[in-house]
Amino acid sequence: MLKIAIDAMGGDNGCQPIIEGLIAAVKKNKNFIAIAVGAKDQLIPLIPQKFIDRIEIVDCNDVIAMHDSATDALKRKDSSAYIAIQLVKDGAADAYVSAGHSGASMSLATLRIGRIKGVSRPAIATLMPTVDKNTLVLDVGANVDCDAKNLREFAIMGQVYVEEVLGIDDPLVGLLSNGEEESKGNEVSKEAFKLMENIPNFVGNVEGNDIFNGSTDIVVCDGFIGNIMLKTAEGVADTIGKIIKNNLKRSLVSILGAVLMRKVFKSLKLRVDYAEYGGAPLLGIKAPVIIAHGKSNSKAIKNAIFQAVAAAQSDLNSNIETRLKALKD
Amino acid sequence: MLKIAIDAMGGDNGCQPIIEGLIAAVKKNKNFIAIAVGAKDQLIPLIPQKFIDRIEIVDCNDVIAMHDSATDALKRKDSSAYIAIQLVKDGAADAYVSAGHSGASMSLATLRIGRIKGVSRPAIATLMPTVDKNTLVLDVGANVDCDAKNLREFAIMGQVYVEEVLGIDDPLVGLLSNGEEESKGNEVSKEAFKLMENIPNFVGNVEGNDIFNGSTDIVVCDGFIGNIMLKTAEGVADTIGKIIKNNLKRSLVSILGAVLMRKVFKSLKLRVDYAEYGGAPLLGIKAPVIIAHGKSNSKAIKNAIFQAVAAAQSDLNSNIETRLKALKD
Repeated sequence: MLKIAIDAMGGDNGCQPIIEGLIAAVKKNKNFIAIAVGAKDQLIPLIPQKFIDRIEIVDCNDVIAMHDSATDALKRKDSSAYIAIQLVKDGAADAYVSAGHSGASMSLATLRIGRIKGVSRPAIATLMPTVDKNTLVLDVGANVDCDAKNLREFAIMGQVYVEEVLGIDDPLVGLLSNGEEESKGNEVSKEAFKLMENIPNFVGNVEGNDIFNGSTDIVVCDGFIGNIMLKTAEGVADTIGKIIKNNLKRSLVSILGAVLMRKVFKSLKLRVDYAEYGGAPLLGIKAPVIIAHGKSNSKAIKNAIFQAVAAAQSDLNSNIETRLKALKD
Repeated sequence: MLKIAIDAMGGDNGCQPIIEGLIAAVKKNKNFIAIAVGAKDQLIPLIPQKFIDRIEIVDCNDVIAMHDSATDALKRKDSSAYIAIQLVKDGAADAYVSAGHSGASMSLATLRIGRIKGVSRPAIATLMPTVDKNTLVLDVGANVDCDAKNLREFAIMGQVYVEEVLGIDDPLVGLLSNGEEESKGNEVSKEAFKLMENIPNFVGNVEGNDIFNGSTDIVVCDGFIGNIMLKTAEGVADTIGKIIKNNLKRSLVSILGAVLMRKVFKSLKLRVDYAEYGGAPLLGIKAPVIIAHGKSNSKAIKNAIFQAVAAAQSDLNSNIETRLKALKD
């Protein structure tokens, strides 16, 4: 049976939301076993007796804190992240999920589990909401400086993920740029455009607003720009929310307005809240690695685990390898 | 008296909104003369007799269309943009405003009027809204590839603009990056961070959301990232608007909701609509150059003209030159 290794100690709110999410996941999906890596004495009291056979516990006595340096991750061999990654490396688990130190997870996954053949740089992919579907954007933080070949690999990995894990046929991929015309772009993106022209369903350059209008399924950029785009989107959504609230306060129909808006905001939250999507896959690693947000609640953890299960059950990695090889041949 | 040269033919909607904006501007501010450059036979019928002494018309018989190549701008010597820029170059006008082909305006301004001493690259600056103030972001499109020194110049030009034209003392300037820590950034931004450390009121790295939370007055980035940030913000605002509208449609209180939301959206529009701000200054040119949006209505044109007047009356350019010189000494 499929085994998912979970760093049960990482995350801003300790092991409780993680174990709760894990229990919710095993309740709903009977086709996998969860391996929770963490301090046994803290985890055991959180797990009801009836789930004991679905949740294995691997004890450890260290956790990489959010403020720790990622460079020490390789030396912290007793940490929950290190041990959970090691289980995947040894074949004792099929995928890894963590809401802990994302830099540590990324370097442990890259250096201990290793990259898929043909992948020069793993990339973090995240789903951005549009009115009626989502757009996968990568890289959103793993690589600040990228060359044209890295960007081409991201396009392939993104397409395979959307096909194999999200189940969308022939997904369209665009290159994030400062205009749609082929002549637009910076030095790296212009070179990437040329390299990407022979990728099936490559739609060419796309702009920032295209991420949110559903015109393409995958948008490729370097991790520096991806992070800025993500934070910009969060900032705009937050500011609009505040402006609307301020206006409602001033309005005469404020009470009725507040009731109405609560409904709207709840629905809006459903779309922009990544708890719905779980976490961000680190694509290009030999086994599925899901990076969940440090603030993840139990629902986000549950969905992150489902993502890991879906990725582990798919042909994601073998197809990434085949597709990259075909491109180079 | 101050003279403002206006490209009266550029813009998506022809000369009418431009002349209307120009009339609104001369009505409200008596301290300048407008020079409208365009086809005399089209402009004259739009100008009421009583404004004839405040609006000079310079005839021309060519206009650079939006789909024309910017590289031809220098050869189109009969175009409204070329002639308006030439008036500034010759000292017959003090500033330039255009809602036409922005690339043509930029290259004409840079090559015909010329750069301020010490400026290696002019930059387009734009105001982004926050809940209660605005943030100036530059560059948002003039330069796709920038080096660290360019970014440092943008910081200085942005600070001087905010001080001299917007009237804010000691404005804070941040460098757009993928995290606040000094260690964050790509190759260019890390180098820029070091160069910017001795700029007064430099707050270090800022993130995408900081543009919208009012934590800093000026945010510096290259024009590739600036354009992506701008389009992302537009895309998110647009998508949130659509999601809210879709939800209201489904709700039982839809009629009342629609009335309420119209009010909110109007107020929201006031904040995010750049018609309020007029246009984007191209900083670093020897005379004020205001690039208005192609879709500008008369209000946007009026405000763009006021921006040009304010910039021309200020010590913007002499202070940019002094400040850049001091930095290099």
